[in-house]
Amino acid sequence: MKVVLKITYDGTNFSGWQKQPGKRTIQKEIENAIEKVVGHPVEIFASGRTDAGVHALCQVAHFETEAKINLRTLAASINAFLPEDIRILSCAEVEENFDARFSCKKKTYIYKFYACRFELPLKLGRELRVNDYVDVSKMQEALKYLIGKHDFKSFVARKSGKTDFTREIYEAKINKKSDFEYEFEITGNGFLYNMVRIIFGTLLLIGYGKWPVSRFKEIIDGQKRELSGRTMPAYALYLKNVDYLGEID
Amino acid sequence: MKVVLKITYDGTNFSGWQKQPGKRTIQKEIENAIEKVVGHPVEIFASGRTDAGVHALCQVAHFETEAKINLRTLAASINAFLPEDIRILSCAEVEENFDARFSCKKKTYIYKFYACRFELPLKLGRELRVNDYVDVSKMQEALKYLIGKHDFKSFVARKSGKTDFTREIYEAKINKKSDFEYEFEITGNGFLYNMVRIIFGTLLLIGYGKWPVSRFKEIIDGQKRELSGRTMPAYALYLKNVDYLGEID
Repeated sequence: MKVVLKITYDGTNFSGWQKQPGKRTIQKEIENAIEKVVGHPVEIFASGRTDAGVHALCQVAHFETEAKINLRTLAASINAFLPEDIRILSCAEVEENFDARFSCKKKTYIYKFYACRFELPLKLGRELRVNDYVDVSKMQEALKYLIGKHDFKSFVARKSGKTDFTREIYEAKINKKSDFEYEFEITGNGFLYNMVRIIFGTLLLIGYGKWPVSRFKEIIDGQKRELSGRTMPAYALYLKNVDYLGEID
Repeated sequence: MKVVLKITYDGTNFSGWQKQPGKRTIQKEIENAIEKVVGHPVEIFASGRTDAGVHALCQVAHFETEAKINLRTLAASINAFLPEDIRILSCAEVEENFDARFSCKKKTYIYKFYACRFELPLKLGRELRVNDYVDVSKMQEALKYLIGKHDFKSFVARKSGKTDFTREIYEAKINKKSDFEYEFEITGNGFLYNMVRIIFGTLLLIGYGKWPVSRFKEIIDGQKRELSGRTMPAYALYLKNVDYLGEID
């Protein structure tokens, strides 16, 4: 039987999703917990890795088991063996041809930020402080250049092993949460290594007035990492949602 | 010169606002930081104490100094000597007759909660999890009984040294932040020790259907602590705002 999981985690104290020897990772913690429940080792496959420090409001992953399991109580059973910074939100059975990575239609990330002179204690490690003279409307304006299919080589970490940098962005917007709090929200068919964090670092230079809005298009078209801004910190980035054809729970 | 401060803090690692020998308190940390800036010991007076673990989005306090200070840079100067869980948001000069406690017209608290089967990692220590069968509309309905002037003896911790339990509540509502996230927001001329946390503990029993909505009025009228629900945890409570006649910055 193939089981799909919806998962949330606080990425702060993990070396990212993917298993690595000697590192505390989300994948390894969940595999250990599931093994205790189903009685045999499992491998879980996520919609995609998240980097060290990145959070998930809702990540999706699947695994296979021949064990007799009670789907109604499975999430609670796995949670009982998980550390408090990971929680399984739900479990469901899926068709054999479902794959959390390859069946994924789109993903949404949010990057949380606030404009303030000072670092706010209640936002430490959760949201990025930006200078209060930021012009968010300019950042919003630049987002139009992201929509559609592009080669995003300007927005990928140099150490990425990928060779195909084409991704399609369906939606990109800045949600105003209050008069100083914002979320940059972006939905696409996939994201490159550090892509959202580099896009945000570039947008911020436009928001600060260091670069004109039109520069954003030139950076996309230029397809060189050295054209774009710096990689912003992981702690303000959240995988918000992963979409498939149809509901998975 | 009398100076008023707007202050935000993460209450998690403090034994509350008020100075106590051998305890880490918000008042003491701020007094120490101001002393380093103005060059003499000061005493600061807040709109009211907050208990151990309670946060402030915006607390207000005042102090007096004869030192020559630059009001424009004062907040940044004090912040330089503060731990990262306290930040001064702004400073302003006020009239000699201003008093952060006695000039206060109203205060607003919020209590953050979410309805979910599991504790969410990203909300630990910040928001209270409640069972997902909670009926928030019943909680909302009960709030009408809070509005106005009442003796709130049913909602005060037994160890409170107070004898006058009359307070006036101007507004009480539940803000829906998403399909499972909420804030209980309450504004009044003052609050007794543990009052908001006991009110919320009582509301929750109504939301769970253990008590009918009308019981809330009987509890207020009964004026006995043993009639109400339990004191809910401090970590989900935030002093949101303190209002005075006129703007203070």
